Amino acid sequence: MNSEKLFDQIKQKQSFLCIGLDTEITKIPGHLKDSEMPLFEFNRGIIDATHDLAIAFKPNLAFYESQGTKGWQQFELTIRYIRDNFPEILIIADAKRGDIGNTSKKYAETFFMNLPCDAVTVAPYMGSDSVLPFLEYPGKWVILLALTSNQGADDFQFLSTIHHERLFETVLRKSLQWGNPENMMYVVGATRAAMLVKVREIVPDHFLLIPGVGAQGGDLEEVAGYGFNSRCGLIVNSSRAILYADDSERYAEAARERALEVQLKMKGILGKRL
Amino acid sequence: MNSEKLFDQIKQKQSFLCIGLDTEITKIPGHLKDSEMPLFEFNRGIIDATHDLAIAFKPNLAFYESQGTKGWQQFELTIRYIRDNFPEILIIADAKRGDIGNTSKKYAETFFMNLPCDAVTVAPYMGSDSVLPFLEYPGKWVILLALTSNQGADDFQFLSTIHHERLFETVLRKSLQWGNPENMMYVVGATRAAMLVKVREIVPDHFLLIPGVGAQGGDLEEVAGYGFNSRCGLIVNSSRAILYADDSERYAEAARERALEVQLKMKGILGKRL
Repeated sequence: MNSEKLFDQIKQKQSFLCIGLDTEITKIPGHLKDSEMPLFEFNRGIIDATHDLAIAFKPNLAFYESQGTKGWQQFELTIRYIRDNFPEILIIADAKRGDIGNTSKKYAETFFMNLPCDAVTVAPYMGSDSVLPFLEYPGKWVILLALTSNQGADDFQFLSTIHHERLFETVLRKSLQWGNPENMMYVVGATRAAMLVKVREIVPDHFLLIPGVGAQGGDLEEVAGYGFNSRCGLIVNSSRAILYADDSERYAEAARERALEVQLKMKGILGKRL
Repeated sequence: MNSEKLFDQIKQKQSFLCIGLDTEITKIPGHLKDSEMPLFEFNRGIIDATHDLAIAFKPNLAFYESQGTKGWQQFELTIRYIRDNFPEILIIADAKRGDIGNTSKKYAETFFMNLPCDAVTVAPYMGSDSVLPFLEYPGKWVILLALTSNQGADDFQFLSTIHHERLFETVLRKSLQWGNPENMMYVVGATRAAMLVKVREIVPDHFLLIPGVGAQGGDLEEVAGYGFNSRCGLIVNSSRAILYADDSERYAEAARERALEVQLKMKGILGKRL
């Protein structure tokens, strides 16, 4: 999927919402727990109920791996279900992978060749050859961690370097040598909204994946104020606030209501800013 | 497993070899390719042939994930096979995970609660809360990426900070606030052997996992010269050079011969230095 198609989707749906499928077996409604594939059944309900309000779905691998082989199977079922039924939607594997070249190559094969994901989150610490293998797939995206939404981001990402910038700025700047706005995006946490000004100085044209709105406390208006560009340029993720809006049999309906609230806010923002 | 047991194993086996199970479906001998679980069958051959020469096995997740659900199943079978048959051996899940707290918690559950791994490699970029959930399991280890063996390590790990040290040194120093020599180790690439002097200034007592000897060009004597401490303190990994010593039906025998060569060198080094 190229950036134009993504922008088309944003305009059509009047939304820049990504729904994070951080699906936890302990948190899903009781009536699903006895099914053969509970994580997948839960996801299918969410996807069917929200696909017209969201431009992306982002399953987080940790929640599937923790269920072992059957969890991995449900991750794959989820990816394929989205691809088969909603081909316009961006599928992000939130995996935060990153390893030496020959290993990153295998991760890229997993998500881009064997599975129909559009994007993978990648950690930058190991540098160029941990990222480049993912960029060899046309139409696919690396979403590189730049500034994350968690408290631990303070430990290294804000380190000042002797080049008069902080580590996250160096990561952004360096990565411009590897990719471009058609194959790279960046994770920038909503809890660091004011930092989006700095980020936009370095990567004005790239899409940014913004976690941390909702459960983690980030503010949508503020994020849009600092981070918007001429093609929106933002994909704002919400996971728990939407997935677990209700824990009864009407969980999907409740998720839709919650997603609709967010989408309406987004529509307002898009109307003002585009 | 605590560090004392690890050191006991080193003394008993006269080895500090870790065998990396980077098992690639395209590289295993032809006679295994038609079996139901080819990666596992291959691994079992390697494990049976080398368990008395190695103190650790390190399956790299990328190679299993790339085979999908069945790959994950074979990863689990491999882990359980090692645990059931060779309880003294350190099992390292080479996963390079790292995410916000609630997600890292799921990864820790995967490898330490649901599976009997002893250690997981973890990426430091997201800071404390991406690491701490792994440290809540007594007797388990985080192996934090400090200085990796790949070329991309130059991109960020050597960045000079305004605190007159490089990023990898900051990572080491900061992480001392999170763990100790009983629950943390560090990845330090053999291709950066001279840097081990700097590393040992900051973490004199921790075990270091050293990849990059063999296929990547690192030198064992040199690594030992710079990195040894009073309890050896090194776990040197070799993957491809041992796994793919031969691609016929005698692959396991050939792997043993190659592992034995390394173990004999290690025995010599241990004899001189302990």
